[in-house]
Amino acid sequence: MTTTILGYAAPSATASLAPFHFNRRATRTDDVVIEILYCGVCHSDLHTARNDWHDTVYPAVPGHEIIGKVLSVGSKVSRFKAGDHVGVGCMVDSCQHCQPCQQGHEQYCEEFPTLTYNARDRQDQTLTYGGYSEQIVVSEKFVLNMPEGLDLAGAAPLLCAGITTWSPLRHWKVGSHSKVAVIGLGGLGHMGLKLAKALGAEVTLFTRSPGKEDDARRLGADHVVLSGDEQQMLSVRGQFDLIIDTVPYVHDLNPYLPTLNISGTLVLVGYLGPLDPFLNSAPLVLGRKSVAGSLIGGIAETQELLDFCGKHGITSDIETIDMQNINDAYERMLKSDVKYRFVIDMSTLKK
Amino acid sequence: MTTTILGYAAPSATASLAPFHFNRRATRTDDVVIEILYCGVCHSDLHTARNDWHDTVYPAVPGHEIIGKVLSVGSKVSRFKAGDHVGVGCMVDSCQHCQPCQQGHEQYCEEFPTLTYNARDRQDQTLTYGGYSEQIVVSEKFVLNMPEGLDLAGAAPLLCAGITTWSPLRHWKVGSHSKVAVIGLGGLGHMGLKLAKALGAEVTLFTRSPGKEDDARRLGADHVVLSGDEQQMLSVRGQFDLIIDTVPYVHDLNPYLPTLNISGTLVLVGYLGPLDPFLNSAPLVLGRKSVAGSLIGGIAETQELLDFCGKHGITSDIETIDMQNINDAYERMLKSDVKYRFVIDMSTLKK
Ligand SMILES: [Zn+2]
Ligand SMILES: [Zn+2]
Ligand SMILES: [Zn+2]
Ligand SMILES: [Zn+2]
Repeated sequence: MTTTILGYAAPSATASLAPFHFNRRATRTDDVVIEILYCGVCHSDLHTARNDWHDTVYPAVPGHEIIGKVLSVGSKVSRFKAGDHVGVGCMVDSCQHCQPCQQGHEQYCEEFPTLTYNARDRQDQTLTYGGYSEQIVVSEKFVLNMPEGLDLAGAAPLLCAGITTWSPLRHWKVGSHSKVAVIGLGGLGHMGLKLAKALGAEVTLFTRSPGKEDDARRLGADHVVLSGDEQQMLSVRGQFDLIIDTVPYVHDLNPYLPTLNISGTLVLVGYLGPLDPFLNSAPLVLGRKSVAGSLIGGIAETQELLDFCGKHGITSDIETIDMQNINDAYERMLKSDVKYRFVIDMSTLKK
Repeated sequence: MTTTILGYAAPSATASLAPFHFNRRATRTDDVVIEILYCGVCHSDLHTARNDWHDTVYPAVPGHEIIGKVLSVGSKVSRFKAGDHVGVGCMVDSCQHCQPCQQGHEQYCEEFPTLTYNARDRQDQTLTYGGYSEQIVVSEKFVLNMPEGLDLAGAAPLLCAGITTWSPLRHWKVGSHSKVAVIGLGGLGHMGLKLAKALGAEVTLFTRSPGKEDDARRLGADHVVLSGDEQQMLSVRGQFDLIIDTVPYVHDLNPYLPTLNISGTLVLVGYLGPLDPFLNSAPLVLGRKSVAGSLIGGIAETQELLDFCGKHGITSDIETIDMQNINDAYERMLKSDVKYRFVIDMSTLKK
């Protein structure tokens, strides 16, 4: 039996988000029914609401940084029970049989993972609706266990901003021997600083804006480098084993390549598109350097991140908002006026 | 006491190479004096002779794929004695104290390695002259031991073309579980096929030219893909753990990125310069793929390659030429009319 619930949806690319009633599917044997307590606000939500990627089906209910409490579970669910605190991130399903899926890299599923919103359920082809809503129904395999003691609102952004920076930190084996830089201090960047620091690395923030130094240091940066200052850029020549580039728009990567150590990697996590101006291969060849990309993270890896954050008491720096203020929050996000992530208190939905 | 010897030098950017007498330094305590038996002909030789990189000091004696026999050694040399067969590659010295040097990556020396020709000796600032000559004097640390039983002429190209493809194969841990592709079938490419195959990988050649299939298979390719054929390119989607791109001129990398497996790497070994047209980051992000570069290899790694080739009986496919034919050989190289490397029989020098 489907359940009719309340959410907030974009009715079209140009209209404000507004209340919207829709159905959640009847519980399958492997499903977990979750009451949503908090939902982080990601740039992808805004892109989807405004059809920036030309694939939005309306009405669209965004939200993929979901923290909730289990209401009930299907008959074959073994890992969760009513009352458990759980998380749901960017994916709610994948093919489960391709090589990436079998290796725990569901985000790179060869048949493409089922996204938490604006996607089609693999079984019944219904549209997926995200976390700006009362409840969500998700297959057990894509539900994360929340560790005890972690602030639930602050933990929401771990499900997207957190895992997006955690996955490259782990893949490129960052530890206490590592020097890591993060480009950009937004939702992703501030998580990158915290996580790299907690992994024991020496951490540098690259930023274009003076005045971010105090905040960067508070968040875990040992050094702050103004990327527009040639002298400062020269001072970190050959330093970094890994640079996590969180900038979400086209930008010149060439000035950062000399700051990589031999065999170092610059990994893009925020920008998809042509690398304009031309990337010069000379620094790559002359120092065995790499330019790479990385997309969110797998489910097991996300659980690892949550457990790590539980152990180290790491959450996102957030500003909690009411559901009704989502349209203002979007406008402020566009101006980078948030430190560092909006999280919706879903108890406000029915106000 | 310096020794006056005969070599072949480019007198200027536009004149043909011709006989040239010059001095080799008096033996230092760590030096090995080598009678040169064979010298491979690399594209870098031609670029240097013709001042393509705008840094040639004339007269210039090229040659950095050197095979010879030890004539005498300095008082502190312990690893070599008169009569030993030895090799010298692209480097004859480096700072020895920076991190890359200490890790055996002399090619990435922070103070830049001393190249075998057209460079300045670190101690006396004299110009280095390469292997198109009777003898060379090289510090023991940069002299390679030739394994028993390897054809000496065919082994010469291992010192540059061989190590340039070996180093990325080893760094990216290619083995019997790996699928490797090589772009381009020239001096580098044919070594890439042989070495990847000998490491146990499943090997594919990407080429623009039909008609290379038989040769490619003979050299170790399991598959040949015409890079201009869209259907063939689609047929290898998501296949390769490593692609070694040996193309020496600017070319579009974008068509190759979808053929990489998740977490796969395309490594440039032949081209330094702007990646025109724009590289698109989307395939990198959506599959955690990398575009990297790699430069020759370190000394220990080169010895490892020689030992591996000795064990597996691997040499380059070569055409042996007389010293007097070097200018014709350059013209033929420019037309890719060589299978797959010219090697000068240095006994012809005094004809
Ligand atoms: Zn997101
Ligand atoms: Zn899959
Ligand atoms: Zn060479
Ligand atoms: Zn060095």
